[in-house]
Amino acid sequence: MPRNQIPPFELKLTQREAHPERTVVRLATGAAFGGDVLAICAGPCSVESAEQIEATAAAVARAGANVLRGGAFKPRTSPYAFQGLGLHGLELMRVAATRHGLAVVTEVLDPRDVEAVSAYADMLQIGARNMQNFALLREAGLSRKPVLLKRGLAATVDEWLMAAEYLLLAGNTQVVLCERGVRSFDSNTRNLLDLSVVPLLATMTHLPVIVDPSHGTGIARLVEPMSLAGVAAGADGLLVEVHPDPASAVSDGRQSLTFEQFASLVGKLAEVAAAVGRRLPAPGLVV
Amino acid sequence: MPRNQIPPFELKLTQREAHPERTVVRLATGAAFGGDVLAICAGPCSVESAEQIEATAAAVARAGANVLRGGAFKPRTSPYAFQGLGLHGLELMRVAATRHGLAVVTEVLDPRDVEAVSAYADMLQIGARNMQNFALLREAGLSRKPVLLKRGLAATVDEWLMAAEYLLLAGNTQVVLCERGVRSFDSNTRNLLDLSVVPLLATMTHLPVIVDPSHGTGIARLVEPMSLAGVAAGADGLLVEVHPDPASAVSDGRQSLTFEQFASLVGKLAEVAAAVGRRLPAPGLVV
Amino acid sequence: MPRNQIPPFELKLTQREAHPERTVVRLATGAAFGGDVLAICAGPCSVESAEQIEATAAAVARAGANVLRGGAFKPRTSPYAFQGLGLHGLELMRVAATRHGLAVVTEVLDPRDVEAVSAYADMLQIGARNMQNFALLREAGLSRKPVLLKRGLAATVDEWLMAAEYLLLAGNTQVVLCERGVRSFDSNTRNLLDLSVVPLLATMTHLPVIVDPSHGTGIARLVEPMSLAGVAAGADGLLVEVHPDPASAVSDGRQSLTFEQFASLVGKLAEVAAAVGRRLPAPGLVV
Amino acid sequence: MPRNQIPPFELKLTQREAHPERTVVRLATGAAFGGDVLAICAGPCSVESAEQIEATAAAVARAGANVLRGGAFKPRTSPYAFQGLGLHGLELMRVAATRHGLAVVTEVLDPRDVEAVSAYADMLQIGARNMQNFALLREAGLSRKPVLLKRGLAATVDEWLMAAEYLLLAGNTQVVLCERGVRSFDSNTRNLLDLSVVPLLATMTHLPVIVDPSHGTGIARLVEPMSLAGVAAGADGLLVEVHPDPASAVSDGRQSLTFEQFASLVGKLAEVAAAVGRRLPAPGLVV
Repeated sequence: MPRNQIPPFELKLTQREAHPERTVVRLATGAAFGGDVLAICAGPCSVESAEQIEATAAAVARAGANVLRGGAFKPRTSPYAFQGLGLHGLELMRVAATRHGLAVVTEVLDPRDVEAVSAYADMLQIGARNMQNFALLREAGLSRKPVLLKRGLAATVDEWLMAAEYLLLAGNTQVVLCERGVRSFDSNTRNLLDLSVVPLLATMTHLPVIVDPSHGTGIARLVEPMSLAGVAAGADGLLVEVHPDPASAVSDGRQSLTFEQFASLVGKLAEVAAAVGRRLPAPGLVV
Repeated sequence: MPRNQIPPFELKLTQREAHPERTVVRLATGAAFGGDVLAICAGPCSVESAEQIEATAAAVARAGANVLRGGAFKPRTSPYAFQGLGLHGLELMRVAATRHGLAVVTEVLDPRDVEAVSAYADMLQIGARNMQNFALLREAGLSRKPVLLKRGLAATVDEWLMAAEYLLLAGNTQVVLCERGVRSFDSNTRNLLDLSVVPLLATMTHLPVIVDPSHGTGIARLVEPMSLAGVAAGADGLLVEVHPDPASAVSDGRQSLTFEQFASLVGKLAEVAAAVGRRLPAPGLVV
Repeated sequence: MPRNQIPPFELKLTQREAHPERTVVRLATGAAFGGDVLAICAGPCSVESAEQIEATAAAVARAGANVLRGGAFKPRTSPYAFQGLGLHGLELMRVAATRHGLAVVTEVLDPRDVEAVSAYADMLQIGARNMQNFALLREAGLSRKPVLLKRGLAATVDEWLMAAEYLLLAGNTQVVLCERGVRSFDSNTRNLLDLSVVPLLATMTHLPVIVDPSHGTGIARLVEPMSLAGVAAGADGLLVEVHPDPASAVSDGRQSLTFEQFASLVGKLAEVAAAVGRRLPAPGLVV
Repeated sequence: MPRNQIPPFELKLTQREAHPERTVVRLATGAAFGGDVLAICAGPCSVESAEQIEATAAAVARAGANVLRGGAFKPRTSPYAFQGLGLHGLELMRVAATRHGLAVVTEVLDPRDVEAVSAYADMLQIGARNMQNFALLREAGLSRKPVLLKRGLAATVDEWLMAAEYLLLAGNTQVVLCERGVRSFDSNTRNLLDLSVVPLLATMTHLPVIVDPSHGTGIARLVEPMSLAGVAAGADGLLVEVHPDPASAVSDGRQSLTFEQFASLVGKLAEVAAAVGRRLPAPGLVV
């Protein structure tokens, strides 16, 4: 009986040969993914209030982040869970980010929202659950906003790159991949963070790749060591959940860092980055 | 260290207690999911031409199917793969189905297409890749067309029921679950068909459940035994890929049955169904 | 980048072509695996006492089983868990089985115990944790007792057949495969019972295959439907845990059937077996 | 329906509280696991000849390794694959290691071989396939040789620690854990190297943990970045496959480093180690 394995998909626009130099994705604020300087994206799982997002933006900028992450449209497993503040959340995040010299990355869930979210964001995030939402990929591909494409919950690297191929084929070449852990049989961690994709992708594609150790582990204590490991493996940046008071967060509190923990992480990161020839972003605007 | 396992989600509308009798989902043609009579859905992966869908509808109706399946909007891993005939494919499928007394189930990928697809289909399919496409779930929930909700590629049963909960909460109570295999480490089969969810779901929810042995295995020779097994486990129906000439199919030919193989399957199914107290649908219109 | 997939192993002695007729494995008592008559193996997870094994042997023989299963040497995840009664347990099981006309299948964990266990058992079981314990496979291969080889916790079908190949190469051709579920990401069931291997193995090997729905699901209520499904899929028999009082069992009580549940299962099984051209064993000695 | 998840096992001897200071495992040569200095274990998958092991020992000692790894008893999926040189291989490895000031770690497969292997090795390796071979664990637990316990192919962290518990309960407290990748659905890599267990284990146990990026990825190009990542995550050492000519290796050539690649790896490792407060071993005897 022959193997039933799906044959390797033929990459075109995302393959290394299509773009001999590695792609560097630059946001309007100057933050970049793929160069010598790492992209440090930090912020809460959900935007909860003006105070929360302002305090977080201030703290992460001070610690050395250059991109503010935060969810306004939330993909929640349960319809009874907090679904996000929507456009109002985006306004709050935009104000806080601009005030502190940060770019904004935020998730878009619905192809009909791409335009509205683009008005506030510097980068559109396509989440793990939507990695193969092809209607959303096509719309984001037409938008020309840089896109952060998270790996699906159980997506192979080939499927992930093919999802990126939809974006590039639609005309959007500003695509960053984000490893956020895959499903596994061990419930000690929320997901299994697959750092081997970082060097593997470097052999397959010219696109940058960052790591999300917060969703990748689900446990705040593991975020710092896995951030250091991700950068040592060659990642172009990090996406980290930070909250003023993780214990009271409306979502994902268990995996969120406090301001102090995040500042400590960035401090240690500088040394590991230097060991592999990378640098942290210059400090943001501290207001 | 405490477990990081996500706590069990609290089901409301989908749980058994919410609806003491098991839900029976009836389509406009009279086909039903959840009663004593099984629902037998069969047809090609993709609608390819008027001739192909007419021949297939005729053959599956003659063999004993009561629902015609077929894809017009196709969720393809690669943007370079055949993407389906779109609305024209739906027209072809509707004509063929009506001619042979079959209901139509077909996938919708984009929330903006729910209304247009509803004009042709008796039942909307939400595919595995979109199980947690919450924008699509909400739109399908508002449509009042019965919905076939496939299990995600690596979805837990809890997550699957929570996706159904989105549909019910939006007002659509006509929901059928479809097991189609999950990701595994063994590439001998395309997916790992998880038949244990059939009796497990019966303890958790009042919604009907059917089995897709075609995607569930990816191998035509395994479709018949796994169909028999699915019904023996208590499934309320089957979703089977059938094609006039599997070797020339534009998609999924390797897992498609010929007309003869499908007729043989239905013949054997009758006996297993009887052994567990179920019946096959009455023959369709044979033109 | 080329695939890193291990190339398919070349089967020799276990492949279908090596033995054009399907192998039928016959035990000393006359029970057989692989013919028209199913093998029904039932009994407790652990032999606990003379009373427990005698009562169980009587009940399962009366209900229609022809093989008594039971553990005397137990492979326990924790060293603090009950490790089995050892040789004394084997003596108790042998007496009870003989009294009721049943064959004995029991696990052997240590290559140094193969001879001693063979003195009591009609069939040696190699458990999932030892599927690639090559020292044990070699010793069991030399013993000439029929062997029941369980699939490893996350073994591919190729690896499983290669483990069987060790047995055949050592000279033992009386090998039965047993599917008992594999690791998955969904903790609703203990393992994910992979029934698709039943028809898949039939295309790859001449060896018989049975199904263990007790370990395969871990939930007593799922054992009956998955037993029916296994036989509908073409399995040559079942391995079912039965206990006089599951709630007080020293191990695996949650997945064990009561005597009444087991008798009910066998009753329904007769009809499904007939639907796929198989029969149940003739009643054992009822003392 | 209640969760079927196995309850967390109660750790006793391996839990952190049992041994407030982290265990440091010291070999007879002075190499240690768990202190400030990393343990660097390197060598071929299989000992093939006196020339091969001598050349490799010389090269890895020169590059900075302090432990020689190599297989003499090989656990091979296929009985037709090279099974190792056995005791003669151990003699060759012992001579080469001693000549270059290296310790020897090598796998033992059979409880009857523990004594013989202990005569040549400084550390006994229990491989992934034998993690729950309880007869072997008991024998190794009685031997008093330090033990390197690899994680099973799909073992949870709890099961892994329980296997270690068998060793400690038998009296052997010199146990090192080794992460070597787990089964996954993506065949781009041989296994999925789970680095999150490194900091996770630090919260659960006092035992040291090292990382095997060779089996963990199966691809030579990924070994260096994943080695750096492992140390950044807090690993106490590495286990790396090195071969004079990987293309001609009798086993695992695809994942083996050349001497030059290994020397390059150790050079970069020094910087990452310094960034996380660790050091490389002092150079071995260069003859």
